[in-house]
Amino acid sequence: MNHYAAPVRDLRFVLEELLGHRSLNLPDFSDTTPDVVEAVLDEAAKLASDVWGPLNATGDRQGAKRQPDGSVTIPDGFAAAYQAYVDGGWNGIGVSEALGGQNLPEVVASAVQEMLHGANMALGLCPMLTAGAIEALAHHGSEQLQATYLPKLVEGTWTGTMNLTEPQAGSDLSKVRTKAVPEGDHYRISGQKIYITWGEHDAAENIIHLVLARKPDAPEGNKGISLFLVPKFLVNADGSLGKRNDVVCASIEHKLGIHGSPTCTLSFGEQGGAIGYLVGEEGRGLNHMFTMMNEARHKVGIQGIGVAERACQHALAYARDRQQGRVSAARGGQECSISEHLDVRRMLLSMRARTDALRALALYCAAQLDTARHGNEPSERQAAQARADVLIPVVKSFSTDQAVEIASTGIQVHGGMGYVEETGAAQLLRDARIAPIYEGTNGIQALDLAGRKLQRDRGEAFGGLLREVAATVEKLNANAALAPLGHALAAGLEDLTAAQQQVLEQGSDPATGPDAVQGYATPFLTLTGHVLCAWQMGLAALSAQAAVDQGSADPFYTAKLQSARFAITQWLPVGRAQRAVIEAGIQCLSDYEVA
Amino acid sequence: MNHYAAPVRDLRFVLEELLGHRSLNLPDFSDTTPDVVEAVLDEAAKLASDVWGPLNATGDRQGAKRQPDGSVTIPDGFAAAYQAYVDGGWNGIGVSEALGGQNLPEVVASAVQEMLHGANMALGLCPMLTAGAIEALAHHGSEQLQATYLPKLVEGTWTGTMNLTEPQAGSDLSKVRTKAVPEGDHYRISGQKIYITWGEHDAAENIIHLVLARKPDAPEGNKGISLFLVPKFLVNADGSLGKRNDVVCASIEHKLGIHGSPTCTLSFGEQGGAIGYLVGEEGRGLNHMFTMMNEARHKVGIQGIGVAERACQHALAYARDRQQGRVSAARGGQECSISEHLDVRRMLLSMRARTDALRALALYCAAQLDTARHGNEPSERQAAQARADVLIPVVKSFSTDQAVEIASTGIQVHGGMGYVEETGAAQLLRDARIAPIYEGTNGIQALDLAGRKLQRDRGEAFGGLLREVAATVEKLNANAALAPLGHALAAGLEDLTAAQQQVLEQGSDPATGPDAVQGYATPFLTLTGHVLCAWQMGLAALSAQAAVDQGSADPFYTAKLQSARFAITQWLPVGRAQRAVIEAGIQCLSDYEVA
Repeated sequence: MNHYAAPVRDLRFVLEELLGHRSLNLPDFSDTTPDVVEAVLDEAAKLASDVWGPLNATGDRQGAKRQPDGSVTIPDGFAAAYQAYVDGGWNGIGVSEALGGQNLPEVVASAVQEMLHGANMALGLCPMLTAGAIEALAHHGSEQLQATYLPKLVEGTWTGTMNLTEPQAGSDLSKVRTKAVPEGDHYRISGQKIYITWGEHDAAENIIHLVLARKPDAPEGNKGISLFLVPKFLVNADGSLGKRNDVVCASIEHKLGIHGSPTCTLSFGEQGGAIGYLVGEEGRGLNHMFTMMNEARHKVGIQGIGVAERACQHALAYARDRQQGRVSAARGGQECSISEHLDVRRMLLSMRARTDALRALALYCAAQLDTARHGNEPSERQAAQARADVLIPVVKSFSTDQAVEIASTGIQVHGGMGYVEETGAAQLLRDARIAPIYEGTNGIQALDLAGRKLQRDRGEAFGGLLREVAATVEKLNANAALAPLGHALAAGLEDLTAAQQQVLEQGSDPATGPDAVQGYATPFLTLTGHVLCAWQMGLAALSAQAAVDQGSADPFYTAKLQSARFAITQWLPVGRAQRAVIEAGIQCLSDYEVA
Repeated sequence: MNHYAAPVRDLRFVLEELLGHRSLNLPDFSDTTPDVVEAVLDEAAKLASDVWGPLNATGDRQGAKRQPDGSVTIPDGFAAAYQAYVDGGWNGIGVSEALGGQNLPEVVASAVQEMLHGANMALGLCPMLTAGAIEALAHHGSEQLQATYLPKLVEGTWTGTMNLTEPQAGSDLSKVRTKAVPEGDHYRISGQKIYITWGEHDAAENIIHLVLARKPDAPEGNKGISLFLVPKFLVNADGSLGKRNDVVCASIEHKLGIHGSPTCTLSFGEQGGAIGYLVGEEGRGLNHMFTMMNEARHKVGIQGIGVAERACQHALAYARDRQQGRVSAARGGQECSISEHLDVRRMLLSMRARTDALRALALYCAAQLDTARHGNEPSERQAAQARADVLIPVVKSFSTDQAVEIASTGIQVHGGMGYVEETGAAQLLRDARIAPIYEGTNGIQALDLAGRKLQRDRGEAFGGLLREVAATVEKLNANAALAPLGHALAAGLEDLTAAQQQVLEQGSDPATGPDAVQGYATPFLTLTGHVLCAWQMGLAALSAQAAVDQGSADPFYTAKLQSARFAITQWLPVGRAQRAVIEAGIQCLSDYEVA
């Protein structure tokens, strides 16, 4: 009932056929052959399907529990499953060899992450946060900090956290109040942080907290915020663990979902101050944090896709199994499973098409990140980074918004059974619902896209994506079987182009621009997500059609063509409506009396 | 944090200004003056806001619990809150005086129901099911059954249930297997029923189960199914309670939400057969059940609106309170609550506009039901019934689909707090999520609309609604301030008209019609819901604008105009996209290989 089979074939389709393994052509990945990628995906699939996946439901039922002594117990099997992940060397797959990792491309790491999150999102959060800590240290930590902490973090023997939010400082981190008082070569940290994912647990020897805090003489606002590393256990000069640092888990949240992931309130400095070490430059804590948040946002998008995939599988398995009603007389009139009813098929295909599209877009974005980091020429790297910068808020928001809808549709496919927790469909909605909120709410992502990412280069990077879409339209139009998809995608492109112009023009007005960006942000991101997803499914259709034309009888390609057809002709129109929403203006939002 | 204030002003706006209290003009309601309605709404609001509402969160936390002896304990306070409802005479407000009720119009009963469901959906289900039992008995029960059972059911001293579903018989009730063996003046019932809402509890003296079952010699399929009344306690000739009948609660479901509402598996006849009495004609059980299901479906729509209203209030209160960020420099640059951010306002206004629109449409439908039952002329009654028949699946499905989205948006407004159960926002999503499933899934409703309701009169009743929309377009166009809304509504009307023609034409083909109806059903219902909701908000705009033009400075009317403007110019476009979905055809659904 609650089975998850890692979608290796679908992932390979994107990596090999849509992306043509372009990341493997980068010189830094010369050792990574397609065979290696295939083997990595197969092994990750085993871990996901056989080890992590079966714990998903028990993790939800048991949940993480804070004990009276402040320790946190995670659900049965989680520690062993995490250890299997560490033992398999999975934590370092995307990390460079210089830092002890395996230096696989981001596209491959992302594919592995999707499988692990689909298998067990609550457990997947633990290494996701560690990855953020590795990023921050690798980019901004001193040599000594790196030498002391990175090897264990890359192994996964120690895990990492990101300590940003405080009760009064959520989306607006300039309000952070946690204090850092200098003391010799370190600082004494005191204050309270909330919503700290895997902030305390018993699955690793040590936990390395990265904490935003303020020196006593620091200016107010963003520029007074620095980044500190605060280990749960201090680390001796020889690398062994020393005494317990002054940070405790004060409580854990009772949440809608991801019950297996402890969401902690951490108290720093109740006994005089936790020892912490400055990471990077004083006053640049927010910048340093955003280095890793950008990639964490991509990973949250991937998370949404993992859960969406699981919801697809869950709903399809139920619909195939559940006998109810008859097919139409025209189709024989016999009793059938509900998967035969066209109305149910609409739900199933909409789930599948959206998941396929979101996956393709997220991995395309990962490939841009590979080029941004490892491209041959600076201009190539810059262009890829600019494109990834545009895509990341879309991948984060659109994937997670859609994941919530897909999981909700998955419940609906199950009928009454969907509402019963034992079935497992409801957990997927509960789990997915966090993803539009954390790592910057989807509203914040939309502001990032319509504001900074679009305005800073006057739409240049965004326009580059539109030109890619246009090229795909031409290819589709040139193929008799796919021309209807080309026309439909062209209409979406026209809408997005018009919307982009409007948001650029109104957003650039020095006086009214900021409000315009805020008002248009969400519909603009939604429209962008729809068109880019449809574009990716246009590419999928071209690839699948080519295989069919070359004589392939593999039903995989037929299914992909059906998925693409649905995405472009039946899902894209819903997104296109956002152009009208944008053209309706924002006066009614400005006028709305809420106070 | 978890406060609910019954929206009396909003309900009165619909009843008085949009519907012009038309139900009160019917002769059967000559005693019901506007003053009476006002007093009823005010009293119901107190019960909802002060008694039922505060129990919503504790009911969720504690949940209904089955005890080892098979009894079911409901959450603290629920029994007293239900008793307060009974004592206040609320159970019979919509029931005729002949049956011991207060004979208030359905519009008023619906308004009261919305408040009670908004206050506490789990508790609201108990009398909702009783109302179904009253309907079935009043229409189909013998004089003796009515005399024995109706007075207590109308009072609410006894509660009622509907026993339809069995493990193999969900959407397809023809598969019901529960047996009814004749024995003297009664039957012996045996079998298992699942998903029985409030099937066992300790809040009432007796529970009257209405059960679909089959005589041993009955034909297979629908025509072999009869309806039986099976009381939990047998009733003696003098009306006192006799011995316990042979029906027990075998288990209760662990559900995503509505935890306070016990969802039971009932076993009939483990000790030789429960005593049951035939209701109505043998072999017409499904027809009799559908008498009450039609109205129950309207009530489920109302339920969705109640929860949506609560979500609006909850999100608005949080957004007004939560300080984060600053308004734009153009607006002064000062620190502000998040309700000042246009992106948050978009969420708040979209929640408010949708809730306003759904409420207006549901109460319009209730007014049609009043005319259908109490109109002066048979032709008037028939026309109103036909219109209500078209509207009910829309009210049920569209209100509940939207309620899920509104509750989900409500979580988003809260940011991280929304994901923490203590906040109360997450419960609203969990509770709302059942409504698209029960009383006939929303897919089944869509089939009912696009199939039977549209095809049986070749779109005549549907076309009557379209003419009403057209009349509203004209009125809006004739008003300089509202003409943009008229144009936007006209475009929606054009889309719906075209979609209706397509569904009528393709749906009427004897061979391919049934599949066409299935394939188009959901997008057609969604489009219908959007256009009819926009129509209602057009009426709301006309009414509010008239008040403003007459010099009213009441901010209520300004707010209603903002809500209408958003609904018609920013929400309707999303619905209009369903025309393109329908025009894209259903080939990709037929082709989809799921087996």
